Amino acid sequence: MPKNRPMTENPAPLSPLPPGSTIGILGSGQLGRMLALAAANLGFRTHIFSPDGFPDGSSGHSPAGQVAHAETVAAYDDLEAIARFGDTVDVATYEFENVPAETAAELARHTRLFPAARALDVAQDRLTEKTFLTSIGQMTAPFKPVDTLEDLGAAASEIGLPAVLKTRRLGYDGKGQMIIRTESELEDACTAMKGAPSILEGFIPFDCEISVIAARAHTGATITWTPGENIHRDHILSATIVPARVSDKTIAAARAAAENILTELGYVGVIGIEFFVMKDETILINEIAPRVHNSGHWTEAACTISQFEQHIRAICGWPLIPPGRHSDAIMYNLIGPDIEKWPKIAEMEDVLLTLYGKTEARAGRKMAHATRLFAKGSLHSKDDLPLTL
Amino acid sequence: MPKNRPMTENPAPLSPLPPGSTIGILGSGQLGRMLALAAANLGFRTHIFSPDGFPDGSSGHSPAGQVAHAETVAAYDDLEAIARFGDTVDVATYEFENVPAETAAELARHTRLFPAARALDVAQDRLTEKTFLTSIGQMTAPFKPVDTLEDLGAAASEIGLPAVLKTRRLGYDGKGQMIIRTESELEDACTAMKGAPSILEGFIPFDCEISVIAARAHTGATITWTPGENIHRDHILSATIVPARVSDKTIAAARAAAENILTELGYVGVIGIEFFVMKDETILINEIAPRVHNSGHWTEAACTISQFEQHIRAICGWPLIPPGRHSDAIMYNLIGPDIEKWPKIAEMEDVLLTLYGKTEARAGRKMAHATRLFAKGSLHSKDDLPLTL
Repeated sequence: MPKNRPMTENPAPLSPLPPGSTIGILGSGQLGRMLALAAANLGFRTHIFSPDGFPDGSSGHSPAGQVAHAETVAAYDDLEAIARFGDTVDVATYEFENVPAETAAELARHTRLFPAARALDVAQDRLTEKTFLTSIGQMTAPFKPVDTLEDLGAAASEIGLPAVLKTRRLGYDGKGQMIIRTESELEDACTAMKGAPSILEGFIPFDCEISVIAARAHTGATITWTPGENIHRDHILSATIVPARVSDKTIAAARAAAENILTELGYVGVIGIEFFVMKDETILINEIAPRVHNSGHWTEAACTISQFEQHIRAICGWPLIPPGRHSDAIMYNLIGPDIEKWPKIAEMEDVLLTLYGKTEARAGRKMAHATRLFAKGSLHSKDDLPLTL
Repeated sequence: MPKNRPMTENPAPLSPLPPGSTIGILGSGQLGRMLALAAANLGFRTHIFSPDGFPDGSSGHSPAGQVAHAETVAAYDDLEAIARFGDTVDVATYEFENVPAETAAELARHTRLFPAARALDVAQDRLTEKTFLTSIGQMTAPFKPVDTLEDLGAAASEIGLPAVLKTRRLGYDGKGQMIIRTESELEDACTAMKGAPSILEGFIPFDCEISVIAARAHTGATITWTPGENIHRDHILSATIVPARVSDKTIAAARAAAENILTELGYVGVIGIEFFVMKDETILINEIAPRVHNSGHWTEAACTISQFEQHIRAICGWPLIPPGRHSDAIMYNLIGPDIEKWPKIAEMEDVLLTLYGKTEARAGRKMAHATRLFAKGSLHSKDDLPLTL
């Protein structure tokens, strides 16, 4: 066993869960919805745990609840509801990494939970995450924990500026973080964090961001999909280009890093791992998401098996299937009013469209995605790709 | 307008139905289930009309009802329930061709119904079907209507023996038909039909059976998938091989016949058309099914768009998408106890499995299907294909 191997063990091997069993999913957004549809395709029933009911509290309103066999509407910290929910399902999983620790622990007392709590611990706290990653030999931005202005000054001296101050917990899509460019900004930045435990990270002048979607089975077998290149707008993923336009060496390094992380976590399920790629082809890990991932939505259109079905197979103790990528692809997120373009997109012969069943197109809300397919091998290293639909 | 063109007109063009609309589906088996899942993927809601509820009459029991937004449990001849159902949906379709004419008519008074009633008329009655097909220049087995023993004798003289006596309505999977080999069998055969209006068809010594899955949009645009070759066991479809191992000329003829039929019917949606292929490469039409078809299940695994999603697009007035076939395939039906093989099939790396959410594996009941993928171009004209999993 490698020296730095975390002490958590794999859960005991699960014999394959038979079709007709019920899968519990914490969270009821589009990821839960696409997991529920994939589960149905394999003959499983699904039970969604959702804080999002109709105004009268009844079920069937959320994107996932609309297509599930059952939905419990309750708050994530309602541990009695979590216990009852756990008792009705044969295995449970989640669509988001910020499941409260007590919720995960209570659920794990009532059913099998995959990925296991260790993955949540690591992914919920940027300090724990980066400490884990460096302990297993992966590279990240330089980082230091910051609780006080004094810590921040010391961290800034050591890491250098510019640097990025982030809350350790609950940040996503650019929320809860700020760039510090000069020493004069340190105090304001510290105040803005309102005492939340934080982390200062070196500013990474990366060339591009790529991500690897990968899966691990109970047996320890892993598969990785070809890395995609992520394009952001306003800190939200806008498009993913597959394959990423990086060298074969970088692609191999990212896939190897993903396999290493899955193995060291004793992980079961699909994971999304984001990397910064530097000019010199070095890769640094930005973050890991212990769930199906927005940058993996292209798998549904361009592969024989989607990330959603692979996740269901993994958590149910079924063998994984090779990705079977048959096309290059660009996946576009349709965010807020972008959804109004659906009639135009529906007419595009090379585009597969997936909508999430959301009625209100609020600004910043992910409403749908569309994947444009290209002949395999035709996208690599192109400069003039269509980055919007 | 061609002389023999049926007098029914296309329904008025439908502007594309927006996501969030509700699609009504008559029938709640696996075809309805797969249609509901495809509809959800496009952001539609579904409402199933099903005679199959829980023992207490409540909904959510049937394969389709498990994954739909709503399910009405009532008999197909409950016209009040049909009317109420029709009022809740934006468009309706069906998963089986034996929808009673009164049911279809009542439903069409309350919502748009696709494919339109003309397709049901043609497909429900073997005499109407064959009369239509020959009127538009398609070839079928020779046929004669039979109501009495006298008719049967005359028909047998004209067509010759062996021949096949079939009920005009409600036969499927070999039910309601018998082969007559000698004149001495005529009387028993007539008695066995119990006075049901029947048809005598010439016995076709075909080389193989193929089928074409095809679709037509409101605009009149059509698409056809590559024909598959159907292998039957005990009169039930056992496997479909794609592409069918027939000549390019036969493939082109079958696709052209499908386009002709769709156009002449003014059809909207997906259709399944079965052909007998003779030694001399002549093709005769066996039957048409105005719905998604078992022999098209391979499209979900081997194409970028499945027959289910294409049908939803067509009935919602969306443009069709090219099939995008990326693999050769063999689709296997798992019937009755075959389902017990699921753990072995789940381990096959080149096989995609789809289960229907049925709990009881009765003999002859279609429980699931599995599609094995092969490199494109590798199956054509092979003799030693694996016809079972």
